[in-house]
Amino acid sequence: MDVHAHACKMPEAVLEPFGYETPAELGPHEVDLEVSHCGICHSDVHLIDNDWGINRYPLVPGHEIVGSVLALGSLVQGVKLGQRVGVGWQRGSCGRCAHCRAGDENVCTKMEATCVGHFGGFADRIRVDARFCFAIPDALDSAHAAPLMCAGVTVYSPLARYGVGPDLRVGVLGIGGLGHLALQFASKMGAEVVALSSSIDKEPDARDFGASGFLDINDRERLRAHRRGFDLVLNTVSAPLDYPDFLGLLKPGGTLCIVGAPRDPVVVPPAALIGGQKAVSGSSIGGSRSMREMLAFAAEHGVKPRIQTMPMEQCNLGVAKVKRNQARFRIVLQN
Amino acid sequence: MDVHAHACKMPEAVLEPFGYETPAELGPHEVDLEVSHCGICHSDVHLIDNDWGINRYPLVPGHEIVGSVLALGSLVQGVKLGQRVGVGWQRGSCGRCAHCRAGDENVCTKMEATCVGHFGGFADRIRVDARFCFAIPDALDSAHAAPLMCAGVTVYSPLARYGVGPDLRVGVLGIGGLGHLALQFASKMGAEVVALSSSIDKEPDARDFGASGFLDINDRERLRAHRRGFDLVLNTVSAPLDYPDFLGLLKPGGTLCIVGAPRDPVVVPPAALIGGQKAVSGSSIGGSRSMREMLAFAAEHGVKPRIQTMPMEQCNLGVAKVKRNQARFRIVLQN
Repeated sequence: MDVHAHACKMPEAVLEPFGYETPAELGPHEVDLEVSHCGICHSDVHLIDNDWGINRYPLVPGHEIVGSVLALGSLVQGVKLGQRVGVGWQRGSCGRCAHCRAGDENVCTKMEATCVGHFGGFADRIRVDARFCFAIPDALDSAHAAPLMCAGVTVYSPLARYGVGPDLRVGVLGIGGLGHLALQFASKMGAEVVALSSSIDKEPDARDFGASGFLDINDRERLRAHRRGFDLVLNTVSAPLDYPDFLGLLKPGGTLCIVGAPRDPVVVPPAALIGGQKAVSGSSIGGSRSMREMLAFAAEHGVKPRIQTMPMEQCNLGVAKVKRNQARFRIVLQN
Repeated sequence: MDVHAHACKMPEAVLEPFGYETPAELGPHEVDLEVSHCGICHSDVHLIDNDWGINRYPLVPGHEIVGSVLALGSLVQGVKLGQRVGVGWQRGSCGRCAHCRAGDENVCTKMEATCVGHFGGFADRIRVDARFCFAIPDALDSAHAAPLMCAGVTVYSPLARYGVGPDLRVGVLGIGGLGHLALQFASKMGAEVVALSSSIDKEPDARDFGASGFLDINDRERLRAHRRGFDLVLNTVSAPLDYPDFLGLLKPGGTLCIVGAPRDPVVVPPAALIGGQKAVSGSSIGGSRSMREMLAFAAEHGVKPRIQTMPMEQCNLGVAKVKRNQARFRIVLQN
């Protein structure tokens, strides 16, 4: 299959048109997709800038992919020709360990990323493992489904794991691609959810997304008034954080869960954890079980990313907007 | 009531005999105890050295108290004259908040400590709130019950909260007053439990306490061989810790729970939490619910601190031994 993609050839380079050809034969578990949409995630920007030093070149970013099935390997089950499916950050795992068998492939030691060491979704086509293609429910249109494949499952999975529901009060720190979905999922799970942000211009949007309150995190006094107020704070931002302040917002037994990709270490005095029996944790995307649950939940409850679409050819412009934090709230490239 | 206690008058001073008199009338919820035993906890040493800067003087340490009831306030229920009871770190709380009502008084904002701002258990008698006196089951003798009141509940409570049982693999870091009880509780809960320590001479004792394995934490190679091996690591030590190494020991979804009192901050690269969906948490003693559960469990399963007893008058010698980490594994003062 001939693929027309967009790649950078070195760190921080602009994306350039890049063609490649897949082997003529599909592997028995592979599928070819015609990509209709691909979201731009902050991780794509980290990859383009080689922030994690894990790149191989040429690098084709893109891991919030929606497309239709063009061809099927001989042993593929559960995916049909022409079907509309989505692919997220993960494209492979061992398939045999306890985590894989439980549908938690995201914590398998053989986790393989869609666009690290493989060509990603900034392209017209892609070949992937059918196990990591998920049927898109009819109620979701493709442009809106794309950001759910990474941003959506990244926030849904910890909210579900921590039992978010009517009795819990949840804080969402950072109202961007991840945060605006976390507000929607948490509020539709029945929790009282509060937006925590330094961008006070985002308050009306945050309330639209389901926040019953908005806390300016630079207003230390208001922050103090909310001490011991939250069961869970989901940290979606990459900026350095004053962890003791945010642990102070937790009720006894509460958790601060990191789903962004902060570069700086977490620094916490033990007393900030011990006295109130609190935890700092991390969460990373979600396995097939979470992915299917998340898509069904989004379809049933009308969780809908707020997006701007751009033609795939304008991927450099899209990336620049994400880099400057100008996406409101997710940019989706379309073919 | 005349009390003969042992107090220090300034930071790091030796304990000296110190007499004081309680008001003639007991408060309606108070009881007077004749102290038979009092364990020496590392927290007593921290108080004697004023490490936390929270002391008032004279300071009477002691918060692993067992004694018999001498007198009862007018409204006391559930405690009888002559009954054998224990008192731990906590002597008061608001009694009305949701945490107090649930028996989790240890996380009440009005938590009051037995020997901070009050005279503690290095004494022949003590007056305390009956709500924080717990009946000692007949199967436990008083000298062995004393260390359960603080060290015991401090380790039992998180083990129970994290659901330790037959399917879990637990690491206990540090084999001292807390650790030697954690090994017993965790193994009697049915878990496979491994001792993690730099004191390789403690291996035979650790195995006696229920450890099925012993890992020298200075042997980096063996440590690496146990990567992703534990559901829960309970950190009972105060020494600085290389957190990423110990987080590496956790299975995906695992927790490193701090129950010691480390002085240095917890420093963790976010990636060490995010990839494996791990957590660093803290736990602090236990409320009345945990205390009663722990005592019943210890009585039923024969959990028994290994102690050295000393006369109350030799409290300075006992404190010196604890300070030099020479206690094997708890020193209990007796009247």
